[in-house]
Amino acid sequence: MKILLDMMGGDNAPLAPLEGAAAAIREYGVQIIALGDEALLKKTAQEHNIPLDGMEFVNCTETIAMCDEPSLAIRRKKDSTIVVGLQMLHDGGGDAFVSAGSTGAIHVGTSLIVRTLAGVKRPALATIMPAKKQPFLLLDCGANVECRAEMLTAFGVMGSCYMQRMMNRTSPAVALANNGTEETKGTPLLREAYQMLKKTPGIRFVGNIEPRDVPNGDADVVVCDGFTGNVILKLSEGFAKMLLGMLKDIFLANLAGKLAYLLIRKGLGGLKKQMDADEYGGAPLLGARQPVIKAHGSAKAKTIQNAIRQAKLCIDTDLCGTMQKALDDLEAEKEKAAQA
Amino acid sequence: MKILLDMMGGDNAPLAPLEGAAAAIREYGVQIIALGDEALLKKTAQEHNIPLDGMEFVNCTETIAMCDEPSLAIRRKKDSTIVVGLQMLHDGGGDAFVSAGSTGAIHVGTSLIVRTLAGVKRPALATIMPAKKQPFLLLDCGANVECRAEMLTAFGVMGSCYMQRMMNRTSPAVALANNGTEETKGTPLLREAYQMLKKTPGIRFVGNIEPRDVPNGDADVVVCDGFTGNVILKLSEGFAKMLLGMLKDIFLANLAGKLAYLLIRKGLGGLKKQMDADEYGGAPLLGARQPVIKAHGSAKAKTIQNAIRQAKLCIDTDLCGTMQKALDDLEAEKEKAAQA
Repeated sequence: MKILLDMMGGDNAPLAPLEGAAAAIREYGVQIIALGDEALLKKTAQEHNIPLDGMEFVNCTETIAMCDEPSLAIRRKKDSTIVVGLQMLHDGGGDAFVSAGSTGAIHVGTSLIVRTLAGVKRPALATIMPAKKQPFLLLDCGANVECRAEMLTAFGVMGSCYMQRMMNRTSPAVALANNGTEETKGTPLLREAYQMLKKTPGIRFVGNIEPRDVPNGDADVVVCDGFTGNVILKLSEGFAKMLLGMLKDIFLANLAGKLAYLLIRKGLGGLKKQMDADEYGGAPLLGARQPVIKAHGSAKAKTIQNAIRQAKLCIDTDLCGTMQKALDDLEAEKEKAAQA
Repeated sequence: MKILLDMMGGDNAPLAPLEGAAAAIREYGVQIIALGDEALLKKTAQEHNIPLDGMEFVNCTETIAMCDEPSLAIRRKKDSTIVVGLQMLHDGGGDAFVSAGSTGAIHVGTSLIVRTLAGVKRPALATIMPAKKQPFLLLDCGANVECRAEMLTAFGVMGSCYMQRMMNRTSPAVALANNGTEETKGTPLLREAYQMLKKTPGIRFVGNIEPRDVPNGDADVVVCDGFTGNVILKLSEGFAKMLLGMLKDIFLANLAGKLAYLLIRKGLGGLKKQMDADEYGGAPLLGARQPVIKAHGSAKAKTIQNAIRQAKLCIDTDLCGTMQKALDDLEAEKEKAAQA
């Protein structure tokens, strides 16, 4: 199994991708195709004593920056790690692509180069989010700012597949993020999506979920447009950071605080781990024909390693094939309903 | 000064409104017009030894339930506390209206009975939210699920007025909640609102604010449509509840946890107080011709008391008059621009 890895993407490149790749090779027995500035990568590896066994290098002379306009960058930077990696994935030169680079460029590049499953117009960015009971899948998290009801329905189907195959959830509960539980709540888009999801075969739609209940983790899949998903994902991150920061101030305030910290250090470590998005790897672009995983821009070595594990699992479980079958079923059901 | 108080609204009615009213009369020297089931109110007050000095009763035979359809309820339940209270406010029988009842009914009732300031189509629900640096005003929080760009602009103007008058913020920073700081980000609605806010006289527009930065409290006013505002408000509540709950589990897990709790109890109390929305009273309906304050449905006596203090401050500072002047300036500027 060959994982194409963007070595130049993210705030901690190329060190974090190098360390993450080495750990993944050692622990999961995958092969890594390392895309980036080969000389820099080999030099960095040597400086940090990172073994390169199992890594194959593909030299890329360009990188797409976070500030680059995604569509333009994909068209012009032909020798960038993202374009080369996605093209190799499409051409059979690898089984999955992992990058901590620009979300926009990975999204556009995936649509244009890897292409989407039949019935999917643009892939959705899906993120596993921490919650009280258990983590859940949130999609779309920001790739598609504006959505139509059919897109939200497809998100529900793809999210359900993902949680079954990748997280072993039996009959995952799919919910629609809305400002009330009644089916008459929300915008016209959400009311239309509610009715479509209710009739969608093969998924267990449990209705609307209110934002205040999202952190409980009652649903396995939370469906929303990319704008709302971005608000949910980023506000949660910001809020957790604020609260944990305020807590840290209390612990550091005086001797009593420091002692208190020592007493519950283990419990706090568990809490922090449960809240830590890095544990779950990256955000898959669901609806792409082949596995594409976007790791957080601030990805550390462990995050990259987890994203590679996630990519391996996508391949092992034939996630994309399963998803295509579920989408085909949805299409067939729609045609049947139209003929009836 | 006479505050019209809905004694039947909210989960803890009528006890919490009775206790809150008694405390407000004692501490702020206001008069309370208590709307509700007079016999029940007097009986409850007697049972709990709540003094009724400064309270005047207006018997209402109906209440609007949370499940009632707002428009229908306002039209049909003519003797409900909300309809009677808003009508008395409009007719000069009181100076402000406070209720912990149905947000939808208060919103619709305010629009229909109290009416809105010139230039405002429907009032916005504004909530003071806790943040790291300092609390900020979020509007709209859920009253107007769908908005036009002009509405978002008016929210910015009204929010800026509110923070100046009510919270003594000089030249408040007004930000637009969006999924990126660049002015090209977000939906067409947000891009249009950005351009309008940038040209709005009399406010200090600081551009887009990303959801992850909202909990920092960098902006004084965060403007958004009611759907997004509902997500921000309710997700923050849910997230805080989850994290504080997990923290509580750590403290209760064993003896070390309990000891740690005792050591930092004071600091945690401060944190909890800072996160406690009850401290700030209620959510004003900005854009109404007269002060209308919606208290949280789970309002306790202290919340009601704070909402009454807030209503008093609205009257003392002539908030509605100030807001009308700011909106008139905006209108004049628009006309000037149209003629130029």
